[in-house]
Amino acid sequence: MQIYDLIQKTRRTQPLTTEEIHYLVKGFTSGEIPDYCMSAWLMAVCCQGLTDEETLQLTLAMRDSGECLDLFGIGNITVDKHSTGGIGDKTTLLIAPIVASCGGYVPKMSGRGLGFTGGTIDKLESIPDFSVELSREKFIQQVKTIGCAVISQSGNLTPADKKIYALRNLTATVDSIPLICSSIMSKKLALGADCILLDVKCGNGAFMKTPELAENLARAMVTVGKLAGKQCRAIITNMNAPLGSAVGNALEIKEVLAILQNRKTNALSELVLTLSAHMLELSGKGNLQECRNKAEKALLSGKALEKFGEMIAAQGGNAAVTEHSELLPESAVKIPLRAKYSGYLSGIHSEKIGLACLALGAGKTAVRNEIDYGAGVEFFRQIGEYVQEGEILCEIHGNSEMLCEQAEHSLQEAIQFSENPVKEEPMIFGII
Amino acid sequence: MQIYDLIQKTRRTQPLTTEEIHYLVKGFTSGEIPDYCMSAWLMAVCCQGLTDEETLQLTLAMRDSGECLDLFGIGNITVDKHSTGGIGDKTTLLIAPIVASCGGYVPKMSGRGLGFTGGTIDKLESIPDFSVELSREKFIQQVKTIGCAVISQSGNLTPADKKIYALRNLTATVDSIPLICSSIMSKKLALGADCILLDVKCGNGAFMKTPELAENLARAMVTVGKLAGKQCRAIITNMNAPLGSAVGNALEIKEVLAILQNRKTNALSELVLTLSAHMLELSGKGNLQECRNKAEKALLSGKALEKFGEMIAAQGGNAAVTEHSELLPESAVKIPLRAKYSGYLSGIHSEKIGLACLALGAGKTAVRNEIDYGAGVEFFRQIGEYVQEGEILCEIHGNSEMLCEQAEHSLQEAIQFSENPVKEEPMIFGII
Repeated sequence: MQIYDLIQKTRRTQPLTTEEIHYLVKGFTSGEIPDYCMSAWLMAVCCQGLTDEETLQLTLAMRDSGECLDLFGIGNITVDKHSTGGIGDKTTLLIAPIVASCGGYVPKMSGRGLGFTGGTIDKLESIPDFSVELSREKFIQQVKTIGCAVISQSGNLTPADKKIYALRNLTATVDSIPLICSSIMSKKLALGADCILLDVKCGNGAFMKTPELAENLARAMVTVGKLAGKQCRAIITNMNAPLGSAVGNALEIKEVLAILQNRKTNALSELVLTLSAHMLELSGKGNLQECRNKAEKALLSGKALEKFGEMIAAQGGNAAVTEHSELLPESAVKIPLRAKYSGYLSGIHSEKIGLACLALGAGKTAVRNEIDYGAGVEFFRQIGEYVQEGEILCEIHGNSEMLCEQAEHSLQEAIQFSENPVKEEPMIFGII
Repeated sequence: MQIYDLIQKTRRTQPLTTEEIHYLVKGFTSGEIPDYCMSAWLMAVCCQGLTDEETLQLTLAMRDSGECLDLFGIGNITVDKHSTGGIGDKTTLLIAPIVASCGGYVPKMSGRGLGFTGGTIDKLESIPDFSVELSREKFIQQVKTIGCAVISQSGNLTPADKKIYALRNLTATVDSIPLICSSIMSKKLALGADCILLDVKCGNGAFMKTPELAENLARAMVTVGKLAGKQCRAIITNMNAPLGSAVGNALEIKEVLAILQNRKTNALSELVLTLSAHMLELSGKGNLQECRNKAEKALLSGKALEKFGEMIAAQGGNAAVTEHSELLPESAVKIPLRAKYSGYLSGIHSEKIGLACLALGAGKTAVRNEIDYGAGVEFFRQIGEYVQEGEILCEIHGNSEMLCEQAEHSLQEAIQFSENPVKEEPMIFGII
């Protein structure tokens, strides 16, 4: 087999065989196939696409490049969730306890913040003493007994994906449906859950800017998931505005607690109930309506909050935060952001909010290697509401006046007003 | 400027600026831009194309990566010819003396054999003592005094092209119109002639298999040539059968001599007159018909043969070959190839003929580093003629019975017969 011929075939949209794709992934991972050949192939994929079967084989070859988790010890049907990433996305922290308190099993490995998007793992680490690293045995034992665990990705999972991703990141071959699909799904398959719910974000704060692109990605991932023998579904959700009212690590944990304590309902809590219902249905816990009822009950009854406390305690954290959110880190400075105009709040540009929070210290950057867990923004008003000029829209949290004032400027730019009432956008664009 | 952004732009068919293209070529040639970035960009070009302006700038950047010849010393309008390569293509050896004997100036650098195609330089080296290496001064002096010189490419011409071509050859990014165009035209522009005639071969023995592809390449090259300020024209010519009756170095020199001695007229001699006429017209020697008349006269009068002799003598070769072709090398063994069937000779597959001659020793291969100058095939019959089973079609020349017998088998496979008379194919498909 010659790498030249494989590149040529993909360039000419002639499908590669299973053996050819596995040769490609193995050869590149081992270093036998040079970077310059792989990058040419990746660009050919970006321009010419892959068939479903090729995408599946690419995914499987990447999955098999490293360790695959054995979740057999959990002894029950397991369900995983993946979000393609957005601003203020704290859904994992809500669905894990909700689904677990309804009898589901959620073995979750999450990532850290990347670019302007926050990471679930960073958010959890704002809880005092919470450990995001568990041994494989402890991880499986915790899911078995409590129903959920959220840990950091570790071990030698999908080394092919790591190496391919690094090359894509240098060669402008990132945004390609089959490549994104195989990258996400190879990790999901290596993690080994029986059911996979995909939350494909769509909008100005997401990687997929249009519903069409999001739908294409969702369809590709569901196809691969099903061909790989999994219960798999994708929900395409709105990321034109930040998810929920808080952006920033501890601020987001506080919002999670407010929802679990039934002190708050918003578009986020509604989304979380929908996602939980689908995860429970995929796990075989009844039809969608029944599962939705269970999820609502778990939330209203306080069982989900209790489960969150159990998970925090099991992972070494201070479970008292579930009742005392003041135990969470707070930034030294808080300044209010006031409306510049009177009018209907018509847009909150999520990418700009993400970048402002990153600058405030909510994530790591090239110049700052430490996270300020208290930093971020908390919104008091929602899209669609009428606000008067000078009213407080949100509060900026940061460790210095200067940082907060800098953020104030970029946040003002992210907020749009309209003279006319604005149509509410749906939170869910589609289910695949 | 970031290479990532340039790759992204080309991938998204957003044209690169002049500065961006020059940055790319300079950066890659100097080693600053890594291979894996360049190969991704090259694949993006293969899939998405380049605009005429981008192709021009790429060509100019590649031209400027190394030495550019200064032909000013010739003191006259110079004309170059380039063929995209074919089997039995000895046109340079005919047009150089014809054009020079009509008052044109032909400073020609040619290549050696590549793959199954023979090289003009190898053919010339079959003439005893002929030197294909001249100093720049001698080269220019010879063109000035005699009107023509054919030497081997030397010096640091277009190093960017050499490096890019090597990478293309490893990454299946060879067949791309803008990349082929910039590779050929950067060399032609570095060589510096005022007028450029492009002979774009088309057919089963050529790189461009269809007239459409050949036309696209021709159009791209002529556009670049004109934008670069040259008199430039392309002739698309038939390469569905070998050009002329001989394939192999000394055998082709013999055919050249037979034509110059007016002992032979065939499709090749007709093509050569056409190409010469166009070169003379481009050089401003009259209208096309006038130039054609001049070329014919030069051939018929023996002046072109005389000029060939002058050129051979000037380059140290034995000019007596022009009258005594028996001075050229001959292979030890000659065997006839007889028609297997009776019928009209309907096809001679040029690529297969080229490969058979390569195996006979007419070119260098991975396993053999020496050329047998006498080796090759001489056809006695032409396409369209009726032949009887058992009649001699051609003679195989090689250094051993075994080599010749092996060639016999592959040659039989390259020859097709038809029960019905065959339509003669045109030699010229188009002029651009």
